[in-house]
Amino acid sequence: MSDENGQKKLAMAVMSGDMDKLFGAFIIANGAAAMGMEVTMFFTYWGLRAIKKNMNTGTTFFGRMLGLMYGGDISKSHPSKFSFGGMGRWMFGKMMGSHNVATLGEMRDMALQLGVNMHGCQMSMDVMEIPQETFIEGVKEPVGVGYFLLKAQEADVQFFI
Amino acid sequence: MSDENGQKKLAMAVMSGDMDKLFGAFIIANGAAAMGMEVTMFFTYWGLRAIKKNMNTGTTFFGRMLGLMYGGDISKSHPSKFSFGGMGRWMFGKMMGSHNVATLGEMRDMALQLGVNMHGCQMSMDVMEIPQETFIEGVKEPVGVGYFLLKAQEADVQFFI
Amino acid sequence: MSDENGQKKLAMAVMSGDMDKLFGAFIIANGAAAMGMEVTMFFTYWGLRAIKKNMNTGTTFFGRMLGLMYGGDISKSHPSKFSFGGMGRWMFGKMMGSHNVATLGEMRDMALQLGVNMHGCQMSMDVMEIPQETFIEGVKEPVGVGYFLLKAQEADVQFFI
Repeated sequence: MSDENGQKKLAMAVMSGDMDKLFGAFIIANGAAAMGMEVTMFFTYWGLRAIKKNMNTGTTFFGRMLGLMYGGDISKSHPSKFSFGGMGRWMFGKMMGSHNVATLGEMRDMALQLGVNMHGCQMSMDVMEIPQETFIEGVKEPVGVGYFLLKAQEADVQFFI
Repeated sequence: MSDENGQKKLAMAVMSGDMDKLFGAFIIANGAAAMGMEVTMFFTYWGLRAIKKNMNTGTTFFGRMLGLMYGGDISKSHPSKFSFGGMGRWMFGKMMGSHNVATLGEMRDMALQLGVNMHGCQMSMDVMEIPQETFIEGVKEPVGVGYFLLKAQEADVQFFI
Repeated sequence: MSDENGQKKLAMAVMSGDMDKLFGAFIIANGAAAMGMEVTMFFTYWGLRAIKKNMNTGTTFFGRMLGLMYGGDISKSHPSKFSFGGMGRWMFGKMMGSHNVATLGEMRDMALQLGVNMHGCQMSMDVMEIPQETFIEGVKEPVGVGYFLLKAQEADVQFFI
């Protein structure tokens, strides 16, 4: 639903950390922001890495193990197909670069500059032991599913990615 | 669209049977139901296991084979990443438990108690040979895609998970 | 939002090329079209193969490699689980056939006959080097994410698959 000023809204839950899905999410977010829509992205589970700095996380044994297996930042994401131990990422990077497509990290930073609202899911952050201070600058405060659902209710477009 | 009483509505197609996606689906469903929304979940393909009892299915050769490979109940779901032949499930179970997050089965049962409407997709049930009597108590009658689309049309929020 | 004639609308981004996800996408599209809804499908990345003819693509080295690894047409799609180097596709084909479910190709052709609007995502087509002339007859002109978002804004139902 547009608000009183007629601004259209988009709400997106981003659970995937796959390179291709994240490209999709940020291309949609940036396109929408460029069209003047209010955009809210709610990052959960695997999606949390997309807003992380390149640093290790985890306090308990399992949390540290997860931090080792799924650590780093957005540049570590693999395509969901043809991963080939990193070769897929390299190949897609080449193909995108040669067609003048920005990197994932550049797209995310552009989204922040366009005013896209990014929030980590509090529960996922707790379970995966990824605290707010590991997120890049510009990411807003953690929120719960209730906040996301309120945003989704008033949005014209909603996606689960 | 809210109905005449102003009740907001959510419609979700759940095709995935992955542990993490199902957590996402039930956390959203329970959050929405707790906020007073009418929630409809339409379980298709791999999602059907989420509403199954722990029993074998299948009548034809292929159906029985599928029942063996993808049988059991919601507790058998693996995370979409780091499955490690079951170790991933165990590890995520530990991490969630230590952060006081309910199990998937508990979340689903809570959803039923909160009045979430769960339906199996009739066509998927036929193809995968998973009949209504293998579902847990509280799951409503099987419906087709037309029913789901009518619910989605009148919903304020729709997701495909 | 229904238009002045009250026609309901559905907008779908199809990024997945998995057999099961595509079944879901086309079953929803055909169901919606049969109910009189205006349906727009926006095929991106792996989803592009669903509207391709059975021919090779790619001009650069990486593009040709991708064409070899992920070439062919919709009949080459694998289920997202139990792929088993093609056996999963064969098995699901058998199970669907024995329950009188159409093949993926038949469902897509039915969607075209029902007037479903199918577009390739221009950027994905550029990056993956899959030009419009490799698409089957009936696929409309390539569009960008802005076009898709406009369609999504005015749609009653939107999905990302």
